[in-house]
Amino acid sequence: MRLLGIDPGLQKTGWGVVESHGTRLIHVGNGIVKSTTKLSLAERLVELRDGLETVLKEYNPDSCAVEETFVNKNPTSTLKLGQARGIALLVPASHGLMVSEYTPNHVKKSVVGVGHAAKDQVDAMVQVLLPGVKINGSDAADALAVAICHAHNVHANRALGIR
Amino acid sequence: MRLLGIDPGLQKTGWGVVESHGTRLIHVGNGIVKSTTKLSLAERLVELRDGLETVLKEYNPDSCAVEETFVNKNPTSTLKLGQARGIALLVPASHGLMVSEYTPNHVKKSVVGVGHAAKDQVDAMVQVLLPGVKINGSDAADALAVAICHAHNVHANRALGIR
Repeated sequence: MRLLGIDPGLQKTGWGVVESHGTRLIHVGNGIVKSTTKLSLAERLVELRDGLETVLKEYNPDSCAVEETFVNKNPTSTLKLGQARGIALLVPASHGLMVSEYTPNHVKKSVVGVGHAAKDQVDAMVQVLLPGVKINGSDAADALAVAICHAHNVHANRALGIR
Repeated sequence: MRLLGIDPGLQKTGWGVVESHGTRLIHVGNGIVKSTTKLSLAERLVELRDGLETVLKEYNPDSCAVEETFVNKNPTSTLKLGQARGIALLVPASHGLMVSEYTPNHVKKSVVGVGHAAKDQVDAMVQVLLPGVKINGSDAADALAVAICHAHNVHANRALGIR
């Protein structure tokens, strides 16, 4: 089963694809979709949409998960992130994929074992769980962590006979 | 010139189309795109996208404006609105339209003459400015107000030789 994880952001949206064979995980690809700061917000959202469309077409995942945005104290940042997140949810759903959502703490707990792990620990565990992976920046690492968390969840649900 | 105004919201996104001939305005259409509460967030965003795509194809506007979301004190509401707003910006931009953004106060000032007008006053002025219009609910009225504001702005900019 091929799983896509997305870590949404207006400037950089990370993505990561893993394949899960039972409890075994294989790295398939990871990267970042960037938007051009000098363009209008609407044009930047089109860039994110186009970039994610390319990922979807190239990797053809069976399922997708998006990190639940950390709700910031700064409402302007929250709004910006919300707009990028709208695109991150829209693109896989418009391909007919079910889109799961996980909180950052859920992702950390699933990957590192504790909910309040530091960013470095998450990156290190992604390297351990996907041996030999070359990660294209920290947003892509976060996206791979989301994909791994989703794989664990799908596996656990299957073992429990859910879905 | 045909102008589309959008008032974004996750549950209801209002839209309104007006035609501007010099300083004269003609109502073309208005309505609401709704999303189904019981569906997942991603599926609801697809519904909004599909609804706005239909409006774009049916009315083929030359230019578009989206109301700048009121940044709420409740970050969860701000995030929700942000996600819907991402779709409202994406759809016209992906048709190659320039998408202008106006604050609620700018819209009120442009339509009623004062920035802190009540909602009822805005609705009443929309009726005055677009005689005979049948408005499909208050979100559609807000969207028509955005379209009227955009028409005034485009007209003023042209008169000043901007764009």
